[in-house]
Amino acid sequence: MSQGTDNKGRDAVVLLSGGLDSATVLALALARGFRCHTLAIDYGQRHRAELDASEALSKQLGAASHRVIAIDLRAIGGSALTDDIAVPEGGTEGIPITYVPARNTVMLSLALGLAETLNAMDLFIGVNAVDYSGYPDCRPEFIASFQTLANLATKAGVEGRRFTIHTPLIDLTKAQIIAAGIEVGVDYSLTVSCYQANGRGEACGRCDSCRIRQSGFETAGITDPTRYCQ
Amino acid sequence: MSQGTDNKGRDAVVLLSGGLDSATVLALALARGFRCHTLAIDYGQRHRAELDASEALSKQLGAASHRVIAIDLRAIGGSALTDDIAVPEGGTEGIPITYVPARNTVMLSLALGLAETLNAMDLFIGVNAVDYSGYPDCRPEFIASFQTLANLATKAGVEGRRFTIHTPLIDLTKAQIIAAGIEVGVDYSLTVSCYQANGRGEACGRCDSCRIRQSGFETAGITDPTRYCQ
Repeated sequence: MSQGTDNKGRDAVVLLSGGLDSATVLALALARGFRCHTLAIDYGQRHRAELDASEALSKQLGAASHRVIAIDLRAIGGSALTDDIAVPEGGTEGIPITYVPARNTVMLSLALGLAETLNAMDLFIGVNAVDYSGYPDCRPEFIASFQTLANLATKAGVEGRRFTIHTPLIDLTKAQIIAAGIEVGVDYSLTVSCYQANGRGEACGRCDSCRIRQSGFETAGITDPTRYCQ
Repeated sequence: MSQGTDNKGRDAVVLLSGGLDSATVLALALARGFRCHTLAIDYGQRHRAELDASEALSKQLGAASHRVIAIDLRAIGGSALTDDIAVPEGGTEGIPITYVPARNTVMLSLALGLAETLNAMDLFIGVNAVDYSGYPDCRPEFIASFQTLANLATKAGVEGRRFTIHTPLIDLTKAQIIAAGIEVGVDYSLTVSCYQANGRGEACGRCDSCRIRQSGFETAGITDPTRYCQ
């Protein structure tokens, strides 16, 4: 990824869920000089505390603008994150049932639409192929394919400009992500990773997402600042 | 595209806007034996009469199910179809201002999510590269790229099954689309193409979409059944 002042004033769209990963992505993009426009997707998720965290993080880290697009993926169904299915707490193998069908495709499409409107050619997304290897739409080949699509789908692409989909976390472990974020000043107490956080943004400490996060802080040797509900 | 009984009982997701093109696509998919699940996207468009038309067409033509996903693209902005910009009535060159940023990418992503949930490997969309050549996301290379993406983005793709994005209208003129639709029994008086139709689904007769449609019926030698507001 390009470094520092090269990107000064260059507009970028950053998908910001309010979780640990996307907060780190935003801080990294800002540190590299991009003028960041954050986009949160309200897809009817159970953990609405994430959306509040997203707005707070956007302001606190210094993004140029913040937007929320509401889209009701419950009409599609098929995920424990949007349907009335129990969130797993015991670890899973393969593709987790918290997988939302085509979620990253939908989110990147919306980010692309916003980027086109803002004349931004850079998109950032916090996908990670290490800890979440069960999700097909977190793999490098998916991202490369979306970048190709973006250049075919848009006015800008037709006119010969080129989109870049930045995935600064894709090869990092959770511990490495946390270490990178601490270096660029992320306050992880503001982020919400829990699949079933309560209204105050307090985490359950038991779901898969909480477990991966806890283990990340432990491995990174950093005190876990997460606010737990118990 | 596969014909007749080969597809019998095979589930497909059909994007159905309520306009002339997508109604024709649904009728063609049904005629070819697919069990069709229609999907309308409520993206904050001005012409809400299209959404009513979509539901009516889905029932009348015999789809297996109909869904509406609401998504507010006004948060993105940048189009005369969702913003407070005058719809052009005098013909345009190049990419029209009625272009919605990344619209077909977003709509296909949502169709893909639904297809994955329904275990359907066939998606239908009424894009057309002839009359709407100004839209980058109506070109065959865009569709081919999305098909590649679909197979990388999903559980089904990872498991080795393959999505097909069907675009039966892509090389047809408006007149040919109308002729094909008449053959499979589409009642075009139920479809709404107008960019600024009124609440009763009556068309203005002046916008680009109305002009293309009128000329299509004329060339096809078929009486225009469109209900005009004047």
